Amino acid sequence: MVKEKLISKDEALMRVEPEQLDQLLHPVIDPKAALNVIAKGLPASPGAATGQAVFTADVAAERGGKGEPVILVRQETNPDDIHGMDAAQGILTARGGMTSHAAVVARGMGKSCVAGCEDIKVYEEEKQFRINGTTVRENDWITLDGSTGRVIMGKAPLIEPAISGEFGTFMGWADNLRKLKVRANADVPRDAKVAREFGAEGIGLCRTEHMFFAEDRLPFMQEMIVAQDLDARKRALAKLLPFQKDDFKGLFREMQGYGVTIRTIDPPLHEFLPKTREDAEVLSKKIGVSTEKIMQSADELHEFNPMLGHRGCRLGITYPEITEMQVKAIISAACELAKEKIKVVPEIMIPLVGNVNELRNQKEIAVRVAEETMKEYGVKIQYQIGTMIEVPRGALTADEIATEAEFFSFGTNDLTQMTLGFSRDDAGKFIKAYLEKKIFKDDPFQTLDQVGVGQLMKIAVEKGRKVKKDMKLGICGEHGGDPNSVKFCHRIGLNYVSCSPYRVPIARLAAAQAVIEGKSKGHAYTSK
Amino acid sequence: MVKEKLISKDEALMRVEPEQLDQLLHPVIDPKAALNVIAKGLPASPGAATGQAVFTADVAAERGGKGEPVILVRQETNPDDIHGMDAAQGILTARGGMTSHAAVVARGMGKSCVAGCEDIKVYEEEKQFRINGTTVRENDWITLDGSTGRVIMGKAPLIEPAISGEFGTFMGWADNLRKLKVRANADVPRDAKVAREFGAEGIGLCRTEHMFFAEDRLPFMQEMIVAQDLDARKRALAKLLPFQKDDFKGLFREMQGYGVTIRTIDPPLHEFLPKTREDAEVLSKKIGVSTEKIMQSADELHEFNPMLGHRGCRLGITYPEITEMQVKAIISAACELAKEKIKVVPEIMIPLVGNVNELRNQKEIAVRVAEETMKEYGVKIQYQIGTMIEVPRGALTADEIATEAEFFSFGTNDLTQMTLGFSRDDAGKFIKAYLEKKIFKDDPFQTLDQVGVGQLMKIAVEKGRKVKKDMKLGICGEHGGDPNSVKFCHRIGLNYVSCSPYRVPIARLAAAQAVIEGKSKGHAYTSK
Repeated sequence: MVKEKLISKDEALMRVEPEQLDQLLHPVIDPKAALNVIAKGLPASPGAATGQAVFTADVAAERGGKGEPVILVRQETNPDDIHGMDAAQGILTARGGMTSHAAVVARGMGKSCVAGCEDIKVYEEEKQFRINGTTVRENDWITLDGSTGRVIMGKAPLIEPAISGEFGTFMGWADNLRKLKVRANADVPRDAKVAREFGAEGIGLCRTEHMFFAEDRLPFMQEMIVAQDLDARKRALAKLLPFQKDDFKGLFREMQGYGVTIRTIDPPLHEFLPKTREDAEVLSKKIGVSTEKIMQSADELHEFNPMLGHRGCRLGITYPEITEMQVKAIISAACELAKEKIKVVPEIMIPLVGNVNELRNQKEIAVRVAEETMKEYGVKIQYQIGTMIEVPRGALTADEIATEAEFFSFGTNDLTQMTLGFSRDDAGKFIKAYLEKKIFKDDPFQTLDQVGVGQLMKIAVEKGRKVKKDMKLGICGEHGGDPNSVKFCHRIGLNYVSCSPYRVPIARLAAAQAVIEGKSKGHAYTSK
Repeated sequence: MVKEKLISKDEALMRVEPEQLDQLLHPVIDPKAALNVIAKGLPASPGAATGQAVFTADVAAERGGKGEPVILVRQETNPDDIHGMDAAQGILTARGGMTSHAAVVARGMGKSCVAGCEDIKVYEEEKQFRINGTTVRENDWITLDGSTGRVIMGKAPLIEPAISGEFGTFMGWADNLRKLKVRANADVPRDAKVAREFGAEGIGLCRTEHMFFAEDRLPFMQEMIVAQDLDARKRALAKLLPFQKDDFKGLFREMQGYGVTIRTIDPPLHEFLPKTREDAEVLSKKIGVSTEKIMQSADELHEFNPMLGHRGCRLGITYPEITEMQVKAIISAACELAKEKIKVVPEIMIPLVGNVNELRNQKEIAVRVAEETMKEYGVKIQYQIGTMIEVPRGALTADEIATEAEFFSFGTNDLTQMTLGFSRDDAGKFIKAYLEKKIFKDDPFQTLDQVGVGQLMKIAVEKGRKVKKDMKLGICGEHGGDPNSVKFCHRIGLNYVSCSPYRVPIARLAAAQAVIEGKSKGHAYTSK
């Protein structure tokens, strides 16, 4: 219609719901099929998937690896399940919200996921789940609709996506118009590559801890955590360093010419330790630390509220040697690529800062190590040091923090959790009731709560830019891929949004629509 | 010196550090004694105590009940330990911050407590704790200094407090001057009585859940929680109602003529359920629900971050029948006393409100039940409905919330946790490092973080009073008894502070000093 001059490009851009793009990128269930819907959970990661139910990540990995279509069903997932999630067609969990582990990882992988399906009871040991009297056993076929949250009994017919060349033309119009840059959240070169294909202009969030969960390095990470003194900890960190450096080199190579924001370690350390005595025994043999000591470390690291515990920059402050290793890996990677004439501008991002003194402490370490490392390589590279704004106090004191930060990135997952006082992994238990009773209009983990969380963001933007007029501001929470939230980010003057690779096209379109909506000055779009 | 006209009353009031009053109210260690200090923890509740170490609440209760001086040593305490804490001379814990269970309960009881003494390793089953090679066994004498956090080996000589009549005169000067009212946090008539003796002008926080932990009613509470349907839940609630009503009557009687703010249930329900299979079996026999079902309920209620979980008004919204029972108990108690010509103005306080719709939902229930109850009794009483401001979003949207609330009470414990992103029970692990490295000037759970948390309070005061000019505003977090925080509350225009009964005199003096400091308009006090 644009080619036939029936409508303008702006009109064309406004006629497509950004979320609809998702359907172009994922399989959907044939709308003509008769479906036996047995449960409904949260639409945690879009697209439909069909496969045989399996109940452990190992089985999913084994059978999925052979090309058999399986759906991984779990009470909830954790980082140990990654290999199974990767090999499965889709993931179904009974617990956890839109930003639970299963949901976030699945979206990152572009894989169908229904999460927080509270009505099903999963019995992992008995290899079955039950729902209102129906029992679904291992090998039973089920279908997930990750776009609506439906769980369907049997093998529903799927329609594969078909992308035409016109898609590229259309997205080009959006790109010409939008002011917001769109980056992706990606931790490994493979995800970075997908992100580039979908049009990402850099990485807005690389979660370095995801690298530590890989099988070949987890034992070193665990060795570091159970180390009884500084020397032992440094020895373990030295073993991790080459892995991290290679990871970063891979990312930098993929994103050649684009910015890469790398966040220092974020989760509490107990997440990395074995959960059972058996696993502790296996680790004991690998690293030569007694099972007792490993169990004791895990016990000492236990937290009542890990989300509000010893994590983020609190780790880097109590264990400065971790920050030192990570910065050394980042700068070494950049220096080595610089020698290959590949330009890299690493952005080191300190998480969970709520007090400027925290950033000052970590920045001092980072600058010292960066300078030392560049001297070792005899190479001078550009790098930036900035911070996440994800703790309410960080937003409230953004003027103080801006004196030390070169950029802010809003971590709206955590900022939402803390501003609303909701744990995203526990909210599944009452958030449905809140939506039904109209206490919430939207799930605040899906669509940014503009009145509350957005108010803190506006405070931070104003206070930050008062100190540094041209400060680079972005968002790297899940909201960076939600159309309404992207438009809000445009309106408050952010420079970029960063989201899961598969949501990059959605964010690009939403960013363009924000410009068009702005032209009509707050009124709904009506004219050409 | 005032009587001799050497100094003015103002000068006299300014010469006493409010915290010094604490020493007038608690025993102290003889400053001339030689001490063998073996460890240092947090000064969680002031005063010194000496006794024989015991490692379970039951032993503490049994021996303490017989008049033997014991110190209860625990990894951490929980509500099951209350009877032992009550009978012990003092409490020592290895884990938990200044607002952990042990610390808060001990302060409420006016009992010495050293908490979060991370260097000691407690082996409860072996009845001993170890510290740097020293082993302290059951029956070994130890002394705690809850004012400094010192743990001392042996029986240190204590000096009992001596209060003279001049204390009353001095406090009278403070009372004549101060603008802030001082209330107390008290849950049972005994505490309310102590609070009155220390000069409290009402109860600012009655935590109704503390009543549910008492031995004679816990089983009914548990029956309510494991109920499989609404009818069963209502039957269990009906059994709790008379207990609650009598509790409130007791409180109202003690506080005759003064306001009593009663908070509806706050903690997540799993806190009330048995932790072990053995305990579940005992409960099963009491309430006739299978052990399996009890264990399953406990499992289903498990939360990753209970602090950010299904608690506060979220419980009242998903289980409106709990709010109904509590409001009925409150209003019935008031009506029955009204018939005895005792005037009561109950203030019903809804916790954890972050969205006006939450308050609207709970208020609708409360008003309906209150009107029904008054009709039943044929009595008309005055009552108020207000809310805690303890979720950052509550402060940020105080203008919306004020349309439904008759009063705000700042819950600065939770507000600090969420604004700073710190769990108070886990912060012990890194807060010491933060103080050492001067990242924090003070422990934010002791002294209000005026820059961050205080900023949210100011926002809430401004937004709230913009909607309701004369809105009653108070604070009921632990900070209500910290002198610097009390002065801040005066400056931002709160009407009252509420604190542990034993801190009421401290708050009264601090409130008077705030007035004197205000006279000299922000300058340090220098002239008469």
